[in-house]
Amino acid sequence: MIFGNSKAPSAELVVIGDEVVSGLILDRNSKFLGERIHEMGVTLTRITTVGDSPAIIEDSVRLALKRCDWVILTGGLGATHDDITKAVLLKVFECGLKNDSNVAVMLEKMFRLRGREVPDSVQTQSEVPEKAEVLYNEKGTAPGFKMFKDESILFSLPGVPLEMQYLFEKYVVPEISAKNNKTFLHRLIKTTGISEAVLWEKVGPFEALQEKAAIASLPSHLGVRIRISVLADSKEKGDVCLDEVENCLAQRLYPHVYGSNDERLEDKVGVLLREKSLTLTTAESCTGGLIGHRITQVSGSSDYYKEGFVVYSNEAKINRLGIEPSLIKEFGAVSEPVAKAMAEGVCRVTGADIGVSVTGIAGPSGGSDLKPVGLTYIAVHDATGTHCEKFVFTHDRVRNKERSAQAALNLVRLRILGVTDTQ
Amino acid sequence: MIFGNSKAPSAELVVIGDEVVSGLILDRNSKFLGERIHEMGVTLTRITTVGDSPAIIEDSVRLALKRCDWVILTGGLGATHDDITKAVLLKVFECGLKNDSNVAVMLEKMFRLRGREVPDSVQTQSEVPEKAEVLYNEKGTAPGFKMFKDESILFSLPGVPLEMQYLFEKYVVPEISAKNNKTFLHRLIKTTGISEAVLWEKVGPFEALQEKAAIASLPSHLGVRIRISVLADSKEKGDVCLDEVENCLAQRLYPHVYGSNDERLEDKVGVLLREKSLTLTTAESCTGGLIGHRITQVSGSSDYYKEGFVVYSNEAKINRLGIEPSLIKEFGAVSEPVAKAMAEGVCRVTGADIGVSVTGIAGPSGGSDLKPVGLTYIAVHDATGTHCEKFVFTHDRVRNKERSAQAALNLVRLRILGVTDTQ
Repeated sequence: MIFGNSKAPSAELVVIGDEVVSGLILDRNSKFLGERIHEMGVTLTRITTVGDSPAIIEDSVRLALKRCDWVILTGGLGATHDDITKAVLLKVFECGLKNDSNVAVMLEKMFRLRGREVPDSVQTQSEVPEKAEVLYNEKGTAPGFKMFKDESILFSLPGVPLEMQYLFEKYVVPEISAKNNKTFLHRLIKTTGISEAVLWEKVGPFEALQEKAAIASLPSHLGVRIRISVLADSKEKGDVCLDEVENCLAQRLYPHVYGSNDERLEDKVGVLLREKSLTLTTAESCTGGLIGHRITQVSGSSDYYKEGFVVYSNEAKINRLGIEPSLIKEFGAVSEPVAKAMAEGVCRVTGADIGVSVTGIAGPSGGSDLKPVGLTYIAVHDATGTHCEKFVFTHDRVRNKERSAQAALNLVRLRILGVTDTQ
Repeated sequence: MIFGNSKAPSAELVVIGDEVVSGLILDRNSKFLGERIHEMGVTLTRITTVGDSPAIIEDSVRLALKRCDWVILTGGLGATHDDITKAVLLKVFECGLKNDSNVAVMLEKMFRLRGREVPDSVQTQSEVPEKAEVLYNEKGTAPGFKMFKDESILFSLPGVPLEMQYLFEKYVVPEISAKNNKTFLHRLIKTTGISEAVLWEKVGPFEALQEKAAIASLPSHLGVRIRISVLADSKEKGDVCLDEVENCLAQRLYPHVYGSNDERLEDKVGVLLREKSLTLTTAESCTGGLIGHRITQVSGSSDYYKEGFVVYSNEAKINRLGIEPSLIKEFGAVSEPVAKAMAEGVCRVTGADIGVSVTGIAGPSGGSDLKPVGLTYIAVHDATGTHCEKFVFTHDRVRNKERSAQAALNLVRLRILGVTDTQ
């Protein structure tokens, strides 16, 4: 393969692992790599996924090397008995092993930190193919390799997603970027609290936008994401175009867009709390701590989140938040009055500026005709008063909890923005 | 390829779609098919994933047909402009199109139900390859195809998961089952709190086990899973074999195995709490509610989990759990004495039988030379006393929280089992 010839540079993946072909695990690595490679304007022509069979791995690697500029292997580099990629590389590239002292030193250091000796099985990781450039892996015990065959380049990366991504960004991205100067850019615009159908009605006609960028709608149970993409000569030019499309969509969809790309709803809530110097507290029943967990995913969240309560039982609601037992008796724990009293109570007890509460029936049991599984009340209290919304989620327990936490964080966001009616 | 020869029958997948190779969507079809095919005792030797390029699809299909008994294609059968699988099939199987009146009738019926005419673009779906047996699709507008080449059989299925699964179960499963009467069974054995290297040292020689079942090691940051697999004449015989291998491994690895297959650590903790009629409460600092969230993922957890505290600030630790301010001043909030006082305090305040506490530095900021990012103390208190363990996690904030919650639940499990030293 020749770089810089008339045709676009291309890459192939070879994914190795019995656990993938037998459907034991879902291969998320290919999605990550496909997306990143695509962004760099390189065509990913083929992904070949194979089990732990040396002959089939070898055949797949040889075929891929003949067809494209870059071949990326994932998996099969660990030190256990079923990791066989290294042996295949020795055959394909016709070489032996050498000892890499840097790897040996890194392993020793890593295990010393854990107060242990390097196990014999791991020690073999410092044996690397003679013809390989070693990709040093600070995130795990298996180094990666970069090897050359005719005019193609092979990268062999570990299968553990964190380590694979780390080595990909550290070694593969600079290599591909240097040889290829078209940029495919995309941006995710994230919304929540609005259904896909209503969202596109609100956007209205968008042919003019589509001339500027490709637009895709990606719904999930936590909200609709809109992906906008451009192929540009430079990152600067592409970003200008994306900014324009994003601004237009965000305006038409106000206040439903909460962020873009990797920004999480909890990040946005944190930014708004900081801007207004407000503190937040939580009173969670059916979400069991998930809202607090999400708030504290943000580094520095201790500045605005001091504490929260998981009040799963009626007694906890009464003892910790001062809910009147008669209120629970009259309306039930899953009701608007109790949700409101929880949000008010948690502010009173903690002195926080904003309190958010959730009480609902996550399922699968506990529902009734009057109060079905998925019925959830979410209340937000602050100096201006208490606002409560009712939801009926229709998924399983795990997703109902996720949707409840998402809706709760979104109501906090809207409250700080001063939005009370989003319809 | 010849059925019934000495070697196990094999299948390959060819997955078609630009949206998959460009990482826009996660391919869950391959996992589904891999698992189902594997269960039927057929080896899935290769999955080839390609974009919407006719030449590359054709090449992939031809190669796959030469190598295995069954080739299953997914995707590219819709009526939009980028669906091109049918054209490729005409080339590979050297035939033209014919009209299938059954498909035409089904389409008319389907659209009449929606009160609409069949759109022209959809009408073309009744044009099918002359040499194909049609796979009638009651779940959507795209029929599938079954075609024969030499001694291999090709199934072309739509990419929409629901339709793909429907046609697979209706047409592919009976075909494969009729020709192959072996069953492939597998089981996941789940461990946590022990590294992969130490785990296999503890297992010791396992050649004898490997004669009974294939054994694979699947590490993740939350623990190592071991997959054991057998190819058996019947489910009953296979299960006997799996039980034997599982029992042997669980014995050698006691107390590190917490469950099998889909069982979560929080499920196991719930089972143990119920068995002993114990209640559990939580005092979370750096995990921010994640432990409570996990405990309440289990339906019915309200029986043993009444409440928990997210005590993120020092004031919350002092005010909610009665921690002495002097203790925090002397040792710092992230310390063994404070972790122990939190576990003891939360039991005192709530009256629960077991209290678990976590205090740590999740990162990326907040670390120092003496107390690095990732330093975490986890304590468990019950009637027999208070036990605390120190950890230094080396991942990012999100994973450090996940590892902390996992370790905390595991310490609760071990405490209920009466295990104090796992080394």
